[in-house]
Amino acid sequence: MDQTTVVLLLSCPDAKGIVASISNFIFNHKGNILHAAQHTAQPGSVLFMRIEWDLDGFEIPREEIKDAFHPLAERFKMEWDIYFSDYVPKIAIFVSRHGYCFNDLIMRHQVGEFKAEIPLIISNHTDLNPVAGQFGLNYRHYPITPENKAEQEEKEIAELKKHKIDLIILARYMQVLSSRFVNEYPNRIINIHHSFLPAFAGGNPYNQAYNRGVKIIGATSHYVTGKLDDGPIIAQDVIEITHRDSVDDMMLKGKDLERTVLAEAVRLHLKNKILVYGSKTIVFD
Amino acid sequence: MDQTTVVLLLSCPDAKGIVASISNFIFNHKGNILHAAQHTAQPGSVLFMRIEWDLDGFEIPREEIKDAFHPLAERFKMEWDIYFSDYVPKIAIFVSRHGYCFNDLIMRHQVGEFKAEIPLIISNHTDLNPVAGQFGLNYRHYPITPENKAEQEEKEIAELKKHKIDLIILARYMQVLSSRFVNEYPNRIINIHHSFLPAFAGGNPYNQAYNRGVKIIGATSHYVTGKLDDGPIIAQDVIEITHRDSVDDMMLKGKDLERTVLAEAVRLHLKNKILVYGSKTIVFD
Amino acid sequence: MDQTTVVLLLSCPDAKGIVASISNFIFNHKGNILHAAQHTAQPGSVLFMRIEWDLDGFEIPREEIKDAFHPLAERFKMEWDIYFSDYVPKIAIFVSRHGYCFNDLIMRHQVGEFKAEIPLIISNHTDLNPVAGQFGLNYRHYPITPENKAEQEEKEIAELKKHKIDLIILARYMQVLSSRFVNEYPNRIINIHHSFLPAFAGGNPYNQAYNRGVKIIGATSHYVTGKLDDGPIIAQDVIEITHRDSVDDMMLKGKDLERTVLAEAVRLHLKNKILVYGSKTIVFD
Amino acid sequence: MDQTTVVLLLSCPDAKGIVASISNFIFNHKGNILHAAQHTAQPGSVLFMRIEWDLDGFEIPREEIKDAFHPLAERFKMEWDIYFSDYVPKIAIFVSRHGYCFNDLIMRHQVGEFKAEIPLIISNHTDLNPVAGQFGLNYRHYPITPENKAEQEEKEIAELKKHKIDLIILARYMQVLSSRFVNEYPNRIINIHHSFLPAFAGGNPYNQAYNRGVKIIGATSHYVTGKLDDGPIIAQDVIEITHRDSVDDMMLKGKDLERTVLAEAVRLHLKNKILVYGSKTIVFD
Repeated sequence: MDQTTVVLLLSCPDAKGIVASISNFIFNHKGNILHAAQHTAQPGSVLFMRIEWDLDGFEIPREEIKDAFHPLAERFKMEWDIYFSDYVPKIAIFVSRHGYCFNDLIMRHQVGEFKAEIPLIISNHTDLNPVAGQFGLNYRHYPITPENKAEQEEKEIAELKKHKIDLIILARYMQVLSSRFVNEYPNRIINIHHSFLPAFAGGNPYNQAYNRGVKIIGATSHYVTGKLDDGPIIAQDVIEITHRDSVDDMMLKGKDLERTVLAEAVRLHLKNKILVYGSKTIVFD
Repeated sequence: MDQTTVVLLLSCPDAKGIVASISNFIFNHKGNILHAAQHTAQPGSVLFMRIEWDLDGFEIPREEIKDAFHPLAERFKMEWDIYFSDYVPKIAIFVSRHGYCFNDLIMRHQVGEFKAEIPLIISNHTDLNPVAGQFGLNYRHYPITPENKAEQEEKEIAELKKHKIDLIILARYMQVLSSRFVNEYPNRIINIHHSFLPAFAGGNPYNQAYNRGVKIIGATSHYVTGKLDDGPIIAQDVIEITHRDSVDDMMLKGKDLERTVLAEAVRLHLKNKILVYGSKTIVFD
Repeated sequence: MDQTTVVLLLSCPDAKGIVASISNFIFNHKGNILHAAQHTAQPGSVLFMRIEWDLDGFEIPREEIKDAFHPLAERFKMEWDIYFSDYVPKIAIFVSRHGYCFNDLIMRHQVGEFKAEIPLIISNHTDLNPVAGQFGLNYRHYPITPENKAEQEEKEIAELKKHKIDLIILARYMQVLSSRFVNEYPNRIINIHHSFLPAFAGGNPYNQAYNRGVKIIGATSHYVTGKLDDGPIIAQDVIEITHRDSVDDMMLKGKDLERTVLAEAVRLHLKNKILVYGSKTIVFD
Repeated sequence: MDQTTVVLLLSCPDAKGIVASISNFIFNHKGNILHAAQHTAQPGSVLFMRIEWDLDGFEIPREEIKDAFHPLAERFKMEWDIYFSDYVPKIAIFVSRHGYCFNDLIMRHQVGEFKAEIPLIISNHTDLNPVAGQFGLNYRHYPITPENKAEQEEKEIAELKKHKIDLIILARYMQVLSSRFVNEYPNRIINIHHSFLPAFAGGNPYNQAYNRGVKIIGATSHYVTGKLDDGPIIAQDVIEITHRDSVDDMMLKGKDLERTVLAEAVRLHLKNKILVYGSKTIVFD
């Protein structure tokens, strides 16, 4: 029996009959709904929905589902997409010199926590090439200077296209991507920032936190937009610190947060559980 | 305009068409769905659902909704109930000598955190009578001995019936209720236990925690069943402790947990967000 | 037997022999050390210390301890103070219209969580006068306008002096105190802010948090300085939220944080566990 | 300049003059105290202390410090030991088939989070041999059956001795060690259990948690004693779950806890911050 499921993610202006129409569409073609979640910020505003059903037994062939759903989507003016659970997304990881998030992602991938392929590692440094080598990963080196940045990004984009990359993870990649680059992968680039945004955006957040004397530090994973550390937040977590913690202690504690918060964001994205709306995310858990 | 909403809570054997049938029922009578959440533990097992829609504009008069829904419920063998958001539930609080949870509930009620009435306080002691007096609450004293327990419980039940009590909160009530009593209010008695159950059930959980040397302590709110500290868990929370914390320190830290975890359970119950299934709860958040 | 303890809190330039000199001072006068904690941010910088010993058996009479310690303090250029555990501090609570933090403090006081007296409530509104009345508290009303602010503050200060107030708690007091006022009670005014500072300082932090789409919200208790929401942080805590939480939901969840984080700060202050250094606190737990 | 520090960890019957005597011992030999923490559960009981000072400038040569301190230790009947920060401990990791904790430890070691060497990996299976190979680690395979267990353990102990192992980490090692083995390394074997002990000791804790319907799950790192899942707890952490989480989801969430809670315990042990007393730990943070 085919275990594949179909996930429909959509947003549209709120109106009567949307839930009924969609569930009828599935039921009338003999689909079995596994999960359904719907959210409306306030009545009359925007409706967000994620609905998942078995492909097995569904009367519409998988390659015709999009076309079959199209009229309904038009009627309610939906922004929408359909995903199949047996598709294996392709991930590119961008790194610089610090390997702790990169290593963590690789290890999680190795023990099966992410259903994905990682055909490409891109870096502006060579430091992590040996680690990539240990795992037989394809490591490409694009050193970045102010002068060559635009040119190098074009090469990176070409490489990403060549490998049909679906998701880019910035695993402590210490370069700001241009708007040109970001616009090529809207809501498909995930970054990890080592503070509970919006506190301590920008550089050296642990130094900022130390100087302010906060009692908790955090980490934030978010989609990358053209504006630094300002994209839609996917996941956040914090840990308590005390006056005994030096900046180095905070960095060490923070690493645990960064790794788990980044991995959580990747997991949610790969399971098609995130809808982006404006500057915010709807995370269907 | 009437802001009242209708909440339908149900569980039934999983089958195709349930979501479609229910959303059609609402849509065909011009109802506007505000929230819908559905959960199936695994395909083919039991489906749980909470769906909420506006009463305003719904074509079936409120007093006829149950009858109108009845055939659908029969078809899918549902256990179900319907609630209206403008109903104001009646709460009885049971207390013994320690007032910290009781005080907290009263204060939350006073600032509008619970949409409910509190027409009755029952205690096996007189200690908290003065506090009840400060707030003009009806305080009834039923001292309990092994000999008079059955008899006193009957009087308590009579008093609860007289006041049409919907929900009983055991706010550190130090008596075990009989099965006879509990069966009168199934899934309608909420208790707070001062440990992260199932660890440290029974008496003196902080002493148990101190002796075991745990690094976190917790609190658990749950529905009361015939078996001590074993009912379906509604909410839990924990706090870190260290070797520096004495049993007294743990009690003090724990009080904050007990108050918030109990209040959270009451809030969820009053908003009709909890389904009990076997020994577990489904909490629609 | 006298259970009173002596607490010495000090900071001074780091140097060899400080711990030995202080512990000798106590030991040579037959004192029994109960707790000792020492912190140096980095070698050669500033040393912070809290040391607590039994008054019972200590050979120096309590009224002479300060004089006896003075030469040692001079030698190491200490900023220091000595506290006796049987002293009962006097608290003034400032409130405006929202009672949830105020109620919580009063209830905690009533069940013995704070070893203190509360001889004075000050408000710029009359809303909470009835609650104060229920508890027999002295409620003074000082309405504030831009024109009368300086004058009213002088009256408030006079009232605080009259009652020999040791600690001022701003329990959601919606007025900014002047520098003149703050300087009268340095490190003796505790405020609660409903965000994890430095994020969302200023007004409407829950609206700010909603608009930014954060996944956690927080609360911060801090000493008040001349600069808004910028004083040394004493305690912070956070709670997870989701896209389902409206601003109202966040306010409700946040209230639990505000109450416990404020109470925690008051508790630490009353136990003489906080040293302020520059813009930060050392919290000896 | 030598950055090495000396750490003294001790417990002894509480008495007047201990802190003074120790700090005099350090000061009189021109030592500079960096950290000092002392804990007494209650007056007159047992005193625990950790004190750390610079080796640089200390007048007693490092190889004579133990002898020099010995009379003081005798006088106060101390259990004690002295550690030097430049010593690099040797770790053996025991694994079975699941690599997620093992991988995590290796990766942390590679990025410098543990100051230690890992000269030995021991397993009752061959599954993780390839991963060990990727990192050039010495992997020894000792299959265990009820019949050969005693014999194999002797071989393991011989191998541990040969490599002068200081600390053993059970990274999801699915065998119970014999008392004979445990007694060879008292308070030097760290295990990770995938529940918040004492809840759900023994096998399949996530299944137990699922069946009980708890709202939080946890992980516990502890020293191994002769009794299963009953040794002194070093660190614990928890994460919230909901009714939506299947046993598999809980295992995935739990892995993050297991990794960080185990790493935290290893970190604390390597920094000589843990004192074991009876069935509990004193963790000097």
